[in-house]
Amino acid sequence: MSLLSPAFRRSLGTAVFVSALIGAGSACAQTPAALPEDVKAAAASLQKQALAGTRAYEIVRSLTVEVGPRLAGSKGYAAAVDWGLRTMKALGFQNVHAEKVTVPHWVRGEESGEIVAPYPQPVHLAALGGSVGTPAPGIEAQVIRVPSLEAVAQLDPAQVKGKIVFYDVPMKRTKDATGYRDAVPARTEGASAAAKLGAVAVVIRSVGTDNNRTPHTGGLRYREGAEKIPAAALSNPDADLLAAEIASGKPVTFRLKLGARVEPDVETASVVGEIPGREKPEEIVLLGAHLDSWDLGTGAIDDGAGCAIMMEAARRIAELPRKPRRTIRVVLYANEEFGTSGARAYAAAHQDELARHIMAGESDLGSGRVWRISSRVDPAKLGIVSDLARLLGVELGDNGTHGGSDVEPIAQAPGRVPLIALAQDATAYFDDHHTANDTLDKIDPKDLDQNVAAWAAVAYAVADMPGDLGRAPEGAGRE
Amino acid sequence: MSLLSPAFRRSLGTAVFVSALIGAGSACAQTPAALPEDVKAAAASLQKQALAGTRAYEIVRSLTVEVGPRLAGSKGYAAAVDWGLRTMKALGFQNVHAEKVTVPHWVRGEESGEIVAPYPQPVHLAALGGSVGTPAPGIEAQVIRVPSLEAVAQLDPAQVKGKIVFYDVPMKRTKDATGYRDAVPARTEGASAAAKLGAVAVVIRSVGTDNNRTPHTGGLRYREGAEKIPAAALSNPDADLLAAEIASGKPVTFRLKLGARVEPDVETASVVGEIPGREKPEEIVLLGAHLDSWDLGTGAIDDGAGCAIMMEAARRIAELPRKPRRTIRVVLYANEEFGTSGARAYAAAHQDELARHIMAGESDLGSGRVWRISSRVDPAKLGIVSDLARLLGVELGDNGTHGGSDVEPIAQAPGRVPLIALAQDATAYFDDHHTANDTLDKIDPKDLDQNVAAWAAVAYAVADMPGDLGRAPEGAGRE
Repeated sequence: MSLLSPAFRRSLGTAVFVSALIGAGSACAQTPAALPEDVKAAAASLQKQALAGTRAYEIVRSLTVEVGPRLAGSKGYAAAVDWGLRTMKALGFQNVHAEKVTVPHWVRGEESGEIVAPYPQPVHLAALGGSVGTPAPGIEAQVIRVPSLEAVAQLDPAQVKGKIVFYDVPMKRTKDATGYRDAVPARTEGASAAAKLGAVAVVIRSVGTDNNRTPHTGGLRYREGAEKIPAAALSNPDADLLAAEIASGKPVTFRLKLGARVEPDVETASVVGEIPGREKPEEIVLLGAHLDSWDLGTGAIDDGAGCAIMMEAARRIAELPRKPRRTIRVVLYANEEFGTSGARAYAAAHQDELARHIMAGESDLGSGRVWRISSRVDPAKLGIVSDLARLLGVELGDNGTHGGSDVEPIAQAPGRVPLIALAQDATAYFDDHHTANDTLDKIDPKDLDQNVAAWAAVAYAVADMPGDLGRAPEGAGRE
Repeated sequence: MSLLSPAFRRSLGTAVFVSALIGAGSACAQTPAALPEDVKAAAASLQKQALAGTRAYEIVRSLTVEVGPRLAGSKGYAAAVDWGLRTMKALGFQNVHAEKVTVPHWVRGEESGEIVAPYPQPVHLAALGGSVGTPAPGIEAQVIRVPSLEAVAQLDPAQVKGKIVFYDVPMKRTKDATGYRDAVPARTEGASAAAKLGAVAVVIRSVGTDNNRTPHTGGLRYREGAEKIPAAALSNPDADLLAAEIASGKPVTFRLKLGARVEPDVETASVVGEIPGREKPEEIVLLGAHLDSWDLGTGAIDDGAGCAIMMEAARRIAELPRKPRRTIRVVLYANEEFGTSGARAYAAAHQDELARHIMAGESDLGSGRVWRISSRVDPAKLGIVSDLARLLGVELGDNGTHGGSDVEPIAQAPGRVPLIALAQDATAYFDDHHTANDTLDKIDPKDLDQNVAAWAAVAYAVADMPGDLGRAPEGAGRE
């Protein structure tokens, strides 16, 4: 996931506090807005069987080994589209097709960095996604350290002019990803904030919870009115080193060389496949994940896992002797990481159909276990969400989820597609997120199966139940 | 540590089994070969005070931040010699001086690798120390996988000729470092074994217990009669990837570019400092560690920790109101990793003095806690070792230790210097050993203090006791 979305930041902040309230409201589960017993029983059976073992690990193994890195616009992403079409067909999906998406094409190039003085040391760094490059000889300048994004704005421009700003913002390890929310603004906004004060480049402490020499990339946003200056993430041990040299009290000089550049936009595609419904095939339960990855790893946890979870959840439903009433549509989105191009293209291309999307959900947090269900549905339908929480055996969250960056646009569009979000345990996820360490070995097959089981149960129940979830309320998920 | 020593391999194999037997023999602890009560009390007091907190972490912090990587022959190593002299003087050592050592100078250069077919993917690799380079365009060849060093010898040369041999030997995580002993021969001997069958290059699965994208370097040995072919270690996730592509059944092609080269030998130095004894200053208790490191990390666990442990153990003894009878000599050896140049130079330069070395010990396994004491002393003196085990509260090992690669030469020389070895917990050590991840954050200050406490107690007791440890028996440690 990239989580550039401001809605994500806001919704995270309220989820925990509101959950108790909503839980109390579930006393109305016996109203008509509840899952029928036969649907619950079929969903529970799907869940139980998936917990005994699925093909999801084999799907993510195939994607990471046979495709690997697949940044938007790259050859790897083109191979991923072929893989998606081929694999969906092989798994028995119907209506398998590519849907056109135009994506930006940012290329990392060669990159390196070093502390020049007082104690020369090479460092491990990675350009932030979208960063401009440096001139070929690099940029060498004195470093000024700031402990937060807010702190830089307090500085006198005379202190910053001509310097490299070092955002030294450590990330906290949390189950609910709030540590990421708190640390990531320095990555997304730090370059422009520093450029406005005359900085020549930015380095940040990696937004990650590990202590490996594997820097965490991720997108930045250049703001209008600020010069575009190069920006890179140092691995956490290298950020420690730079901080320690600064703590010596001597002036610290750093050299940064980034070969990053932007190439012309590329026309590529999201990949879509369906399990047609038996009664109302025109009504759609959308299961999403993103097919692109950052360039440094093989994209196992971000988001090979999500692709595998959603494809396998749908495939298991397809194998049932009796299909659910409605269609399950799996969408493997193009370019989530570098601007959510696929999500926006889907919302535009399917706008006339959104009123017939009765639910959307996405998986984009590796193989961490599902521990909470949140929603953004008609409040009168919350009994169904309560029933799903009991069925899955997970906590009940609030009704203000943004759903994830790939489904958020269709919930906010006039169609107001209702959302179900299954929160995954994020405790370990940010050790490897957006790094070269995002590889297959970081996936726990049993945890992956638990996700498949949860999504298969939810998708089946919503696709087969007689009623629906209404429409997503206005405003919710935006606040 | 590099552990190229065959004696290390042999001694590890017997240590555990013999310890029970020796333990039984400790009933003779009340013979004259025992520590006097006053010496024990003083050593216990030193130990207790060190457990409450030492300066060791600050020493290794200083070395890793102010010097960093310090491969034999490099500028970094020259800076480390300056650091050693400066730091020993600042800590109050006497007779601080450099002792000349000539070292080889191997340079890594630029390096890269990729799987070319069937599924193109870049990989993370590191040349093994001492490897020759490839021609500038690299070497591209089909890969043949073997599960062990022994397995390659079983192959028909026709299968190997013109290929890249991939040694896919996983390492087991163990407390006593036996996992390293079992996995490392493919690294040290694999290139020549493959070259004899006509291979053009070698890649190995990293000898390490982690799943990070940080390959483990380490020395190799080219054997006479075999062509010198390039050899590199793949990180464990990359070894998984290569194995997975091979498992597809399709021919796998790999490209390897190594810029490694050998430059002329460099005259440099080990660093020595002393805490002179109060009664017999000519008698020496030697505490060793190695000052060099591999080039990829900042050498925190290998062996900044050992330098800090031994310097701080001696410094604490120096601060006592009454110094021990004999001299404590700390030796920070040059070039352990790439041929134990410093250890051999020391044995040659001090041969006339070895009979007056009454003990030697070294620390070279990061900050893992001390859990066993082993020895190589006159068997009549084993009561003292038993007393030390009880004093430290650790297991009692055998009397066949090799002591470590830097003290082994003086135990095998005619002077037959007695050895004490404190085994450290190796469980986590090989996650980061010889990788870019060998950085300060891998050191636990409390664990480091436990090592200081143990070595301070041992060094004090042996330096102050009325008797000695005799001489190391012939043969022991060689078998």
